Amino acid sequence: MSPRERLRVLAQWGVLGTLVGGVCGVASAIFLFLLDEATALRERFPLLVYALPAAGLAVGALYARWGSSIRGGNNLVLDTVHEGDRQIPLRMAPLVLLGTVLTHLFGGSAGREGTAVQMGGSLADAIAHRFRVSADTRRELLAAGIAGGFGSVFGTPIAGAVFGLEVLVVGRLGYEALLPALVAAVVGDLTTRGLGIVHTAYPAPSVLPLTGGVLAKWCVFAVAVAAVAVVFVEGTHRLKKLLEGRIPALPLRMAVGGLAVVGLWKLVGTDMYLGLGVPTLVRAFVDPALPESAFAWKLLFTAVTLGAGFLGGEVTPLFFIGAALGNVLARVLGLPLDLGAAVGMAALFAAAANTPLALTIMAVELVGASVLPHVAIVAALAYLLTGHRGIYPAQRIARLKY
Amino acid sequence: MSPRERLRVLAQWGVLGTLVGGVCGVASAIFLFLLDEATALRERFPLLVYALPAAGLAVGALYARWGSSIRGGNNLVLDTVHEGDRQIPLRMAPLVLLGTVLTHLFGGSAGREGTAVQMGGSLADAIAHRFRVSADTRRELLAAGIAGGFGSVFGTPIAGAVFGLEVLVVGRLGYEALLPALVAAVVGDLTTRGLGIVHTAYPAPSVLPLTGGVLAKWCVFAVAVAAVAVVFVEGTHRLKKLLEGRIPALPLRMAVGGLAVVGLWKLVGTDMYLGLGVPTLVRAFVDPALPESAFAWKLLFTAVTLGAGFLGGEVTPLFFIGAALGNVLARVLGLPLDLGAAVGMAALFAAAANTPLALTIMAVELVGASVLPHVAIVAALAYLLTGHRGIYPAQRIARLKY
Repeated sequence: MSPRERLRVLAQWGVLGTLVGGVCGVASAIFLFLLDEATALRERFPLLVYALPAAGLAVGALYARWGSSIRGGNNLVLDTVHEGDRQIPLRMAPLVLLGTVLTHLFGGSAGREGTAVQMGGSLADAIAHRFRVSADTRRELLAAGIAGGFGSVFGTPIAGAVFGLEVLVVGRLGYEALLPALVAAVVGDLTTRGLGIVHTAYPAPSVLPLTGGVLAKWCVFAVAVAAVAVVFVEGTHRLKKLLEGRIPALPLRMAVGGLAVVGLWKLVGTDMYLGLGVPTLVRAFVDPALPESAFAWKLLFTAVTLGAGFLGGEVTPLFFIGAALGNVLARVLGLPLDLGAAVGMAALFAAAANTPLALTIMAVELVGASVLPHVAIVAALAYLLTGHRGIYPAQRIARLKY
Repeated sequence: MSPRERLRVLAQWGVLGTLVGGVCGVASAIFLFLLDEATALRERFPLLVYALPAAGLAVGALYARWGSSIRGGNNLVLDTVHEGDRQIPLRMAPLVLLGTVLTHLFGGSAGREGTAVQMGGSLADAIAHRFRVSADTRRELLAAGIAGGFGSVFGTPIAGAVFGLEVLVVGRLGYEALLPALVAAVVGDLTTRGLGIVHTAYPAPSVLPLTGGVLAKWCVFAVAVAAVAVVFVEGTHRLKKLLEGRIPALPLRMAVGGLAVVGLWKLVGTDMYLGLGVPTLVRAFVDPALPESAFAWKLLFTAVTLGAGFLGGEVTPLFFIGAALGNVLARVLGLPLDLGAAVGMAALFAAAANTPLALTIMAVELVGASVLPHVAIVAALAYLLTGHRGIYPAQRIARLKY
């Protein structure tokens, strides 16, 4: 390739990446704004939670009517990257946005990255379609959409870019979409922040020099994180399959799921496992009196919410579960509480999504450099220990982990 | 694979990785200790520099006599990873250590990572041979040796692990050696520190929020970094080819190269471009009066030293060149001086070695989280702009950059 052609390719990626990042950033800003409003409303009027079964019925009906082509969610986006089938319907963006906001308004326990990835993927595919790009370019734009959505929704552009490359296949990270993913994630993040969104600030964990003894503790820690990741992945999948078999109609299934969440809520007698759960997530960094069972309850709430078909993602609940688990493990193993929470938070999602590098970088972007080298060690070990499973079944396995 | 077999594989990697990391860590500690002594001696007796041509003659004779099978250096290690030829001679470790220490004792301008990678590679291959492991396992142990050497010599275990995976091929990062590389780098680093080695402390750069304007500045910055990377890579390669053609005998060639370094030294009238140059590298973070031409002089000193055949690596000189260049660019572009130096330092090596991810993480391990997202953006752009060249010609190209 001549220097001139090379420049043209780079410029094309700059322009397309900026476009994708811009629309992802706007979508994330709208989404985060509505999510904040919905969460604030639900916190002010806890009675709203009683309407979760009805909300499930409504969202289920909406999806049954207009959403059959996009039910695949994150897996549809990943499948399209790999197989390059027909265009991801653009309606995925508004539908998943609306569905997720409703999940949170009524107290369902879910996250944000699924929504961001699906909005980013469908918007990027619309751009690819509009500019009639080649099949390769389209794949790379889809990766950019994932990166732009992820980076802008969490305010972590570099982790977003790496996530867009790393999530596609297990066991290998390809650099073909490096430039578009980076541009989309950086522009997306700038756009979202430019629109006034302020992201959660996490406490910076203690500095702890790595020693042989600390390393041994992290190995035990990683085994526990991997075990919880396996329970989460398998639990959610199996519950989903079970409910799909028993209650084939989506609206009814979601209504029943909503009812179960309401039941769990009344059972535990606290609001802390509803919605995103950011306050408790931050509390896990500092409170040595956090209930030991917090991680298990949040896991149960999330598995029921997502297993029943409610829309949302897994990141924030997994962050909550990981931080609460890390809090408990830190107390048991004699590690700093804040460091345990930070490492648990990132490593659990790394293990569940098979993205150890992206989550190592995300941890640094969220809480600072003192998580290194600890988070990288725990994320890599937990990733290896979970075997060939993950929250995205459409992820391809490029190479077995061992 | 059954859980039991999986545990066996993980345990095997734990043991082999620990072994590789342990020997790499000891080798790095001995090497860094001798390097410190040599540098201190040379600084106390600057007249030693006049003996560089004689040292070149001696080291050249040593390598001509016993080193013909290991002249490939880093490229031999990379070729062995890819082609799995006969064992890397174990003598590479002591010879490259001795040769590099002599380079620095007499003021040659070179680095450390080449030595660390070659010591790590040859020691890891000896372990692979001793345990009669399979061809695949051997490849992964070699990657672990690279990771262990790199991680322990710079005190950056996570960057070392990622470097061991990322340096093998351009355009893809495979996870097959993730566990052994991580174990070797972490154990290697713990061993080196445990033996009393203290690594260079760099100032933590200013916090600078990313904005559109700052992003535009980084794009200009990246173009300059890529241009200097190309000049370094092409300059060193061509000088090497030219000298090999003109002066086939290695001892004579190194003597002439030594003479040229002495001539350059007298010409500039300062010691700052000799040896590793760590004091000036640190000065680039804080001194707005650093000579604008510092990066160019260091480039010239290093190209002559390495082009003539002296032993050592490229990292520390490239860090110096990058930090000095970043210092100047920061002044011109109106960026914080310390951030410019930190970003320039990591991005230049990332571009020259085709390892943007490892160097992004290395920057965080060396100077803290405030280099993010800046360093990742500049490293990735400079990596893309340098095209398909690099300081390690034996690196395979898995996929074109565009």
